[in-house]
Amino acid sequence: MQANIAAAKAALAHLDVEEKDVAIKAASRDFFWYSPVLKNRLDHVTADFVVRPKDEAEVIEILKVCYEHDVPVTTRGAGTGNYGQAMPLEGGCVMHLRHMDKVREIHPGRVICEPGVLLKDVDAATREHSGQELRMFSSTWATATIGGFIAGGSGGVGSCTWGALRDLGNIIRLRVVTMEAEPRIVEFTGEELARVSHAYGTNGIITEVEMPLAPAYDWVEMFVTFHDFMDAARFSEDLANQDGILIKLATVFEAPIAHDYFQRVKPHVQPGTNLVGLMVAPHSMDGFLTFAGRRPEATIIYRNDDHNWERGPGPVFEYGWNHTTLRALKVDPSITYLQVRYGHPNSLKLVEKMRDDFSPEVLQHLEVMRESGRVIFAGLSLVKFTTEERLNEIIKLHEDAGAMIFNPHRYTLEEGGRQTVDDRQLNFKKESDPKGLLNPGKMISWDDPDWAFNEMYAHPRLQPLTKA
Amino acid sequence: MQANIAAAKAALAHLDVEEKDVAIKAASRDFFWYSPVLKNRLDHVTADFVVRPKDEAEVIEILKVCYEHDVPVTTRGAGTGNYGQAMPLEGGCVMHLRHMDKVREIHPGRVICEPGVLLKDVDAATREHSGQELRMFSSTWATATIGGFIAGGSGGVGSCTWGALRDLGNIIRLRVVTMEAEPRIVEFTGEELARVSHAYGTNGIITEVEMPLAPAYDWVEMFVTFHDFMDAARFSEDLANQDGILIKLATVFEAPIAHDYFQRVKPHVQPGTNLVGLMVAPHSMDGFLTFAGRRPEATIIYRNDDHNWERGPGPVFEYGWNHTTLRALKVDPSITYLQVRYGHPNSLKLVEKMRDDFSPEVLQHLEVMRESGRVIFAGLSLVKFTTEERLNEIIKLHEDAGAMIFNPHRYTLEEGGRQTVDDRQLNFKKESDPKGLLNPGKMISWDDPDWAFNEMYAHPRLQPLTKA
Ligand SMILES: Cc1cc2nc3c(=O)[nH]c(=O)nc-3n(C[C@H](O)[C@H](O)[C@H](O)COP(=O)(O)OP(=O)(O)OC[C@H]3O[C@@H](n4cnc5c(N)ncnc54)[C@H](O)[C@@H]3O)c2cc1C
Ligand SMILES: Cc1cc2nc3c(=O)[nH]c(=O)nc-3n(C[C@H](O)[C@H](O)[C@H](O)COP(=O)(O)OP(=O)(O)OC[C@H]3O[C@@H](n4cnc5c(N)ncnc54)[C@H](O)[C@@H]3O)c2cc1C
Repeated sequence: MQANIAAAKAALAHLDVEEKDVAIKAASRDFFWYSPVLKNRLDHVTADFVVRPKDEAEVIEILKVCYEHDVPVTTRGAGTGNYGQAMPLEGGCVMHLRHMDKVREIHPGRVICEPGVLLKDVDAATREHSGQELRMFSSTWATATIGGFIAGGSGGVGSCTWGALRDLGNIIRLRVVTMEAEPRIVEFTGEELARVSHAYGTNGIITEVEMPLAPAYDWVEMFVTFHDFMDAARFSEDLANQDGILIKLATVFEAPIAHDYFQRVKPHVQPGTNLVGLMVAPHSMDGFLTFAGRRPEATIIYRNDDHNWERGPGPVFEYGWNHTTLRALKVDPSITYLQVRYGHPNSLKLVEKMRDDFSPEVLQHLEVMRESGRVIFAGLSLVKFTTEERLNEIIKLHEDAGAMIFNPHRYTLEEGGRQTVDDRQLNFKKESDPKGLLNPGKMISWDDPDWAFNEMYAHPRLQPLTKA
Repeated sequence: MQANIAAAKAALAHLDVEEKDVAIKAASRDFFWYSPVLKNRLDHVTADFVVRPKDEAEVIEILKVCYEHDVPVTTRGAGTGNYGQAMPLEGGCVMHLRHMDKVREIHPGRVICEPGVLLKDVDAATREHSGQELRMFSSTWATATIGGFIAGGSGGVGSCTWGALRDLGNIIRLRVVTMEAEPRIVEFTGEELARVSHAYGTNGIITEVEMPLAPAYDWVEMFVTFHDFMDAARFSEDLANQDGILIKLATVFEAPIAHDYFQRVKPHVQPGTNLVGLMVAPHSMDGFLTFAGRRPEATIIYRNDDHNWERGPGPVFEYGWNHTTLRALKVDPSITYLQVRYGHPNSLKLVEKMRDDFSPEVLQHLEVMRESGRVIFAGLSLVKFTTEERLNEIIKLHEDAGAMIFNPHRYTLEEGGRQTVDDRQLNFKKESDPKGLLNPGKMISWDDPDWAFNEMYAHPRLQPLTKA
């Protein structure tokens, strides 16, 4: 199977096709460079051309043409993914959905929109329409698309209340186009959603999404400081367990993260300050202040609605989730990170143990989440990177202790997840992408059903190009 | 201290004063007759007169006059309380707040209103204004007042998501008038709220409330059946633990409650049918149906938005909370009930044990609640009443097993609660009601600080009148 790039390009020439090398290179990259492991391996990856459909009919046309000419298609939302999800390992076509940015319908509790609309623009439309907003968003709210969030993300700001994106009820419906001689349009709800959500666009292109909404409030964003790290973690857990206090974010940063990496926060903290970032509903502020008043170990140093900081810190959520790593990286390029799940019921004990074992080589950054109705912590720990071997060792020691790792230094679905094959996704790929042209290299079970996961997977077409 | 009723009545004659005996008698009663224990003891209780203030100024005037003439004042919302809370044990004045029914302000996430507005009318106003509704309401939504709910209630429909009324954040602010020579107006928030919420009007009259709101949806109301009771209970617990599925009610009824006591449900169930009543947000229905589809033991027999029942059952929440008891009582007058807390983490095990020990003398009726972030069950068990001794024995056996009882066969704050003095309420009463004229007899610690709680408290003024 040899891709006929020239024929495909010619057939698509009447669409919005990008030909400039610099622009193609840019549209072939995401935030893979967060990972020192992926950085070397993926740096050279680039598409042959980029095309930007303006509607579902054009998506179908592109898929049909690329199918005919055996051209790989990697779909791109905004390219803020950080494990190379949106990078075209085999070159070919990057299909960029930025023109598909319409919000179609808004109803009480739900919105229907195209995949390429930015998360912030969904929220602007639903807020304007009826005081509603998305239940949860990745901290890349300002730059990422809703389609990319669903196909590549897992949760974020709001998950402390609503759980993960994959939880029942957090996606209502997805409309998907398949990669066949005659692309089909399929509508997925319920059990079927798992086929294409968080599938990195490997088995179908999402052309319309229906998502649940929550009320939009003028969230009060705060920073709260603690001398003791575990006090900060307990405070966040206890707060999330207050049924009557509505929050959208509770993030814990071990010292000296706030002092060393948060430039605008630095003047207001010490190296030893542990920080908690919060978003609390305005009508829950009385309850929150009562809660905080019972905990003298907590000091509120910033409220977005009432502060005297010379330079405001910007949105507090842009310190949390994967933004923490971004801020740390900017100051210290040797920093990387891990994604940890500290599950129920020993969430805090496990955090404490990992901190005892690894601080300061690994600094705790925790996000409060809900899982099966319980408050747990997701860790996006900052790691002072030395070698791949040491990184793998740290991962292993976490897993041995019972702290599950979602490895962000892997670009495949399986390795970044639970290292098992998702049959629902694999089976649907057999129907929907028989030639294996959609985002090739990201689903190991497609390329190599017998892969044992004991070393890092490197796609055959990728391997020869790396100079490792 | 001798009440000068005539002088007080004369001084208040220009207000809306009720003089007719039948009307006075009616306004002196509540749903105390739910309890065979309270029925005999309180049946004769009646006020000397009823007055209906139209605003806070008139409340102040009434309190001032009654204070001057040593006349007891018992405040009444709608009188749907079911432990004699609103009954004037010492006679005197019943102050009925039905004219104070204005909704003053509605904002995103909160409402400010007078105490005498019905729960349903708060919801109508907030829904009309901006698609909002109260977070929780007692199942007497259609007839009870918001002030009575705050002063006498504990939670209800919505508590499966938001916890109990007393939890931080579920009341924002209360404006209260004291019973002194010169009544004062005080505004309570935060820690101070506990002084007057659930104080039965014994230490101040609430004249304005500020409550948090949640979005109003067209809740899908359902009945789901199960052959096995524990399947029904587990289903409800699991559902409440689905972070992405928004619910407002999950009630479990052991067989044969549905068949024997729910007349409109009866044609659709068998004596052995265990029933679950639900309210699910419409945009969570896809998630819910997926959840239910995984549980073949569950059969949806009714949806309010799609059914072919010849006679609809009416609102599903009017089968839950204390309405279950009401429906059972109508069919079998020998039924009474208990209020049980099956706490975390052994909630379901305890339910199972109590059922093994007592069914069918005690039938399980469970309400899903949240407490400190966890799903637990509140039991409003139906009890086939024989004697007071047996009832007390059942209570003791529950408590011995670790199932806390809030005794609904007691009319005092302490006995109906945790049998301990609430110092915040007692201390505030010392300031706010120095003569002890507000709803006398309901706070034991005021009347008899050394009361030992080993037998039922009977107010000194009440005792001689009962023919027990
Ligand atoms: C600073 C920073 C913070 C982040 N914070 C979070 C966070 O809080 N939570 C979180 O979950 N993630 C987070 N991420 C990861 C990422 O930003 C989010 O998942 C984001 O929502 C992805 O959106 P995007 O439009 O950039 O998608 P892209 O990166 O363009 O695409 C992501 C994946 O989805 C596929 N895809 C995109 N659109 C479609 C479509 N229409 N149909 C099928 N497949 C499609 C792509 O092929 C790719 O595999 C963060 C990343 C960074 C760099
Ligand atoms: C069928 C049925 C179902 C019920 N379901 C529930 C339920 O789900 N949850 C629940 O919590 N309760 C429930 N109850 C109990 C009761 O109905 C509720 O608490 C209800 O909200 C009380 O409102 P009301 O206006 O009738 O108050 P009332 O009965 O008039 O008063 C209740 C108490 O509050 C005091 N009070 C009233 N207004 C004021 C004020 N403005 N200032 C100070 N004190 C005041 C009264 O003196 C009295 O002590 C139920 C009762 C019945 C009969």
